[in-house]
Amino acid sequence: MTDFSKTKDMFHLPEGMIYLDGNSLGPLPKTAAARIARTVTDEWGEMVITGWNRAEWMAQPSTMGDRIGRLIGAAPGHVVVGDTLSIKVYQALASAIDLVPDRKVILTDSGNFPSDIYMAEGLIKSLSRGHELRVVAPEDVAAHIDDDLAVLMLTQVDYRTGRMHDMADLTQRAHSAGAIAMWDLAHSAGALEVDLAGCDADFAVGCTYKYLNAGPGAPAFIYVSPRHAATVRPALSGWLGHEAPFAFDLDYRPGAGIERMRVGTPPVLQLAALDAALTIWDEVDMSALRQQSIALTEQFIVGVEAACPDLELASPRDPEQRGSQVSFRFAQGYAAMQACIARGVVGDFRAPDIMRFGFTPLFIDEGDVDAAVAIIAEVMQKRLWDEPAYQRKARVT
Amino acid sequence: MTDFSKTKDMFHLPEGMIYLDGNSLGPLPKTAAARIARTVTDEWGEMVITGWNRAEWMAQPSTMGDRIGRLIGAAPGHVVVGDTLSIKVYQALASAIDLVPDRKVILTDSGNFPSDIYMAEGLIKSLSRGHELRVVAPEDVAAHIDDDLAVLMLTQVDYRTGRMHDMADLTQRAHSAGAIAMWDLAHSAGALEVDLAGCDADFAVGCTYKYLNAGPGAPAFIYVSPRHAATVRPALSGWLGHEAPFAFDLDYRPGAGIERMRVGTPPVLQLAALDAALTIWDEVDMSALRQQSIALTEQFIVGVEAACPDLELASPRDPEQRGSQVSFRFAQGYAAMQACIARGVVGDFRAPDIMRFGFTPLFIDEGDVDAAVAIIAEVMQKRLWDEPAYQRKARVT
Repeated sequence: MTDFSKTKDMFHLPEGMIYLDGNSLGPLPKTAAARIARTVTDEWGEMVITGWNRAEWMAQPSTMGDRIGRLIGAAPGHVVVGDTLSIKVYQALASAIDLVPDRKVILTDSGNFPSDIYMAEGLIKSLSRGHELRVVAPEDVAAHIDDDLAVLMLTQVDYRTGRMHDMADLTQRAHSAGAIAMWDLAHSAGALEVDLAGCDADFAVGCTYKYLNAGPGAPAFIYVSPRHAATVRPALSGWLGHEAPFAFDLDYRPGAGIERMRVGTPPVLQLAALDAALTIWDEVDMSALRQQSIALTEQFIVGVEAACPDLELASPRDPEQRGSQVSFRFAQGYAAMQACIARGVVGDFRAPDIMRFGFTPLFIDEGDVDAAVAIIAEVMQKRLWDEPAYQRKARVT
Repeated sequence: MTDFSKTKDMFHLPEGMIYLDGNSLGPLPKTAAARIARTVTDEWGEMVITGWNRAEWMAQPSTMGDRIGRLIGAAPGHVVVGDTLSIKVYQALASAIDLVPDRKVILTDSGNFPSDIYMAEGLIKSLSRGHELRVVAPEDVAAHIDDDLAVLMLTQVDYRTGRMHDMADLTQRAHSAGAIAMWDLAHSAGALEVDLAGCDADFAVGCTYKYLNAGPGAPAFIYVSPRHAATVRPALSGWLGHEAPFAFDLDYRPGAGIERMRVGTPPVLQLAALDAALTIWDEVDMSALRQQSIALTEQFIVGVEAACPDLELASPRDPEQRGSQVSFRFAQGYAAMQACIARGVVGDFRAPDIMRFGFTPLFIDEGDVDAAVAIIAEVMQKRLWDEPAYQRKARVT
């Protein structure tokens, strides 16, 4: 059983800040600075080029992929780290489309993260083969799975509302219709229990800078089902996905299994941060994490709803249908969030009217939730969003 | 005039090592450790999510792109940093192909880096529109430029031999034939004078971990000519290339100019290292660098040829046709390089028989060249490559 009072002590949290934005960018693990400094000074500095072997830089995308795999229900050898999430979405979707050459419909929902949709649009335009990206409301996805479907492409947890799709059910429906199921775990990995193998998902992608706490610009990951890993075509066929990168052959031959989903040179400094973050995750029981996440989000919803009648819950009330965040709609949400941030409660705002709060049991506890609720209540009850200082236009949040 | 004795002091070079592999991975700038630590501790640690604005993480791909632009003949606003070089090759080629929809031939040479060729193969297979990747010998490129050509896709300096293409001439030939010219500057940026605007190149890509010294896994960059930047379609249409990423619209609208070539979240820790590296480059006169590079490579060739008759020069003898590296062919090259490395002269080996040495005036001087020549001469004259310890199979070099 994970002791979350101990994990909280493993993070540097700014003085006076209740950080409810770990679903956007996780905070700094205390060991990360030294871990990164070791890579910079002892490895890059002293080993230079030989670090690729001696410090095992080249192996890290796979070894760290396996450690992420444990958190998302993937057996070792089926996850590899690299690139950004947008690139991994493109890579997975391109491979998925290849598996169903006679079908043209890619189904997603309007709660998917825009970049996933944009990458799909770009791929479809490049292919010029008549594919259609069908974007439906989240609750209508199941009804749109039919025998035309090529790929079901969803983000499991809606970035705005925290609404969670039933991965097992929708994957099974997609398979019954002869389609491929591809999941974005951006708001799932490290947020809840994921069982990719148990759900028989075909592809999954995710990022490591949110719940996994690997820092700004941390790399993404990709999972390919064992059913496809040895045969799938990597559309982004980079040299490090080659069977023998250092043979420098002129012809591409895909590497074994998931290795073929590597593309270019791994981001070694970002991987050092990921290593530090995963060292915490290696000891976490995901079932205990999920229970604690639900306890915190329930506590928060009950507290805010009691104190702030103007805030309308945008997340599902049923915790089984909710990820590890809670969102409220409020027309003055941007300014209200600025007022909260000024008082030390850091959530974020998503246009047009969503105030979003992430609950991350590794470093947020019941006392934080109580304190956050009290500050949000003060902001709402005193109408602090009316103050001109909080009204400026959103830039990056 | 750049004082190269001063720049040498700006790098950490391992004790007893003559590092002739800066063309593969540049060494650690002395300020990098503190610069990265600042980003980790003061920015990620203290600002967390607000670092995207307060520490200007979001702006860095453009501001650092401009600083690289100065080194390669690009005006501000035409270079952006991100992803790996392989991804940037794919991105540039996909956009280039779009500009010449009625043509099907992509011409490259067998001296191009394999990953560029692999990425092109992968893109062509995805497109399934009958494109052909024509791979010719480097010296035959000009003769193969004809009215069928869609895209001329070359790496300016051959990674094995250091042979340099005439960018101005070949770009002009491509344009005369109605084709697009795309250049990979992996072994050019920071190695020699590049004038993208003067050559009227259409696209260029490059990496920052070689001559630019930004560390293992440092990001790539992409240049798009002002003639195309405002109209080109970004095939990898990620959210940070959107006109308004934080509006979270469901439809993709490309950002202004080069901004549309951004894809996903910038690698902030790697960018901190790049910032440290560029702080050195900001003061370098590229003409002086090129003169010094030629002086060092000439000194090295004369020295090695005099002492090592078994080594066959694989690089052009004319410095005007050579990048900033010198390569020799030798059947026992792998073992001979291991023997050199064991004696502190670090170059690298490229299959099947290339011993490769990079000359980087920022931290390699005439004394280093003399010392390296003496050690290589000892290895060759004493046939040290025969020692079993040096005979093991190449892994990563």
